Amino acid sequence: MRPFAERLATLTEARGRLCVGIDPHSATLAGWGLDDTVAGCERFARGLIEALGEQVAAFKPQAAFFEAHGSAGVALLGRVLADISAVGAVSILDVKRGDIGSTMQAYARAYLGDGELAADAVTLSPYLGFGALAPALELAAANGRGVFVLARTSNPEGGGLQQAITAAGVSVAQGIVVAANAANQTAGTPLAGLVIGATHADSGVDLAGFDGWVLAPGIGAQGGTITGLQASFGAVYRRVLPSVSREIAASGPEPTALRDRAAALTLTS
Amino acid sequence: MRPFAERLATLTEARGRLCVGIDPHSATLAGWGLDDTVAGCERFARGLIEALGEQVAAFKPQAAFFEAHGSAGVALLGRVLADISAVGAVSILDVKRGDIGSTMQAYARAYLGDGELAADAVTLSPYLGFGALAPALELAAANGRGVFVLARTSNPEGGGLQQAITAAGVSVAQGIVVAANAANQTAGTPLAGLVIGATHADSGVDLAGFDGWVLAPGIGAQGGTITGLQASFGAVYRRVLPSVSREIAASGPEPTALRDRAAALTLTS
Repeated sequence: MRPFAERLATLTEARGRLCVGIDPHSATLAGWGLDDTVAGCERFARGLIEALGEQVAAFKPQAAFFEAHGSAGVALLGRVLADISAVGAVSILDVKRGDIGSTMQAYARAYLGDGELAADAVTLSPYLGFGALAPALELAAANGRGVFVLARTSNPEGGGLQQAITAAGVSVAQGIVVAANAANQTAGTPLAGLVIGATHADSGVDLAGFDGWVLAPGIGAQGGTITGLQASFGAVYRRVLPSVSREIAASGPEPTALRDRAAALTLTS
Repeated sequence: MRPFAERLATLTEARGRLCVGIDPHSATLAGWGLDDTVAGCERFARGLIEALGEQVAAFKPQAAFFEAHGSAGVALLGRVLADISAVGAVSILDVKRGDIGSTMQAYARAYLGDGELAADAVTLSPYLGFGALAPALELAAANGRGVFVLARTSNPEGGGLQQAITAAGVSVAQGIVVAANAANQTAGTPLAGLVIGATHADSGVDLAGFDGWVLAPGIGAQGGTITGLQASFGAVYRRVLPSVSREIAASGPEPTALRDRAAALTLTS
C-alpha cells in the first residue's frame, strides 16, 4: 500500500483538509434521537459516513465510545473502520495507545495489522517515551499506515507535563517533535505525524523542518477556530488536518446540514 | 463495594503481595503448546487463573494481547475478568488509557463501570495531565474501584520524559506522585495508586507520605528483582505490589510449577 502520508496528501488535494470525529457520546446521540446503545452508535456512525464519506478526507473514530459498549462496541468499531475504507476516506483511529516491547507490538498488530480493527492510522501516547512506540512505527512503515503521536494537546491540564523541560533543554512536547522528525528522517518518509491542539494561540512547539502531518483537534467545543489555524501553525499549515467532532455532529442528522457544516470547516488552501 | 485499596489490603494480608500478569504473547503461548488464537489465549488465561486464583491477590491482564484478536479477543477479556472475580482475586486491567473530558468518562465507563469489561482497577497514562484523568478517579471512588497512574516506568525509553523538570521544580514523575497524593487527600481514601517500575536502583521519586498502592512491573524479564524492592521502595515497601508476567508463565503450564514459582515471588513481609 502507498505510504499513509502520500495517500492523505492525495485525498486532501481532492477533498480539502478536514477530519470528522466519530464520537458517539450519549448527548450527541440524543441530539440525533438515538439511544446510547450499540445500535444507536451504529446509526450515528453510518449517518456521518454516508453523508460525508465522499466529501471529507478523513474520519477519526474515538475508540473510548465504542469500548464503553464492550466487545459488541468493539465489533461495531471494526465495521465503522471498514465503512470508512469503503467510501474512499482514510481512518485515523483515536486510541492513544502507548506501551513497551511486545505489548506495543500487540497494539500495533491490533490496529495497524490486517485484522478486524485495522485503521489507516492511529493516535499514540508517548508517556513511556517516543522510543517505546517503535514497534508501531515499524509496522506502520511496513503496511503503508501512519501514526499521530501526542505532542501538545488541546486540554488545559496537559501543559504542566508537556511544557516540562527535558535534559536536552527543550519542552517535553518539543522533544516529541524532535523525535518524530528524527524517525521520519530515518524512515525516509513522513511516517510519524503529531497531535497538536488547535486551542493554543501558537502551536507551543517549533515545527520548522517537520515534514509530517499534524492532526489538530480542539476546533469548536474546546475553543479552537478554523480561522486561527494559519496563525498557530505557520509553515506547516498546509499539512494541518483539523479534527472536528461535536460541532459537525450537532448539525445532523440531516445529511445536507452535515455536508454544509463540514464544507464550511474544510481547509482548501 | 468496599474501596479497592482496602480490598487489596485484606487480600494481600491473607495471600501476600504478588500480581500475576496475564500476557498471552505468541512466544509465551508456544511455550505452553498453544496457538496464538482466541482459543489459545483462553486456555492460557484459564490455566493461570485455575492454578493461581486462590493463591495470589491480583491478576493483571494486558489488554493489548486481547485487542490484537479483535472483538472476539475483547469478549475473551471480559470472560477473563469475570473468572478473576470468581476466584476471589482482584483484577488490575492494564489498559494505560488516558484522554480528556467525555472521552475519559467513556473509558471509565468501559472499565470501571458495571459492564462486560469491568475491572477492579485499571492502569492510566497521564500524558494529557493527571487532572485529565479525573473522570476515572471519580467513577472509581463511586464504585469501589482503583486506578494506578503511570509515574516512573520500567523501560529505558521512559526516562527522558519522566525525568523532565516541571514548572514546580520537580520531575514529571514526581509531579504525578504529588498529584496522586493530593487526589487521595481530597478523596479521603487512597484511591489513586502509582505504577513505578521495579528496574530502577531506587524508585526515582520521593514517595514519603504517599498512602496509596504501588504497582511495580519489570520483575524478571526486564531485570528487576523481588529482593531489590525493599531497597528501591523503602517506606512504602509494604504497599508495593510486584507484577510478574513472563517469569511465572514460563514455569507453566503445569499447575504445581506455576504455584511454586508464584510462591517464591510473593512478598509476605
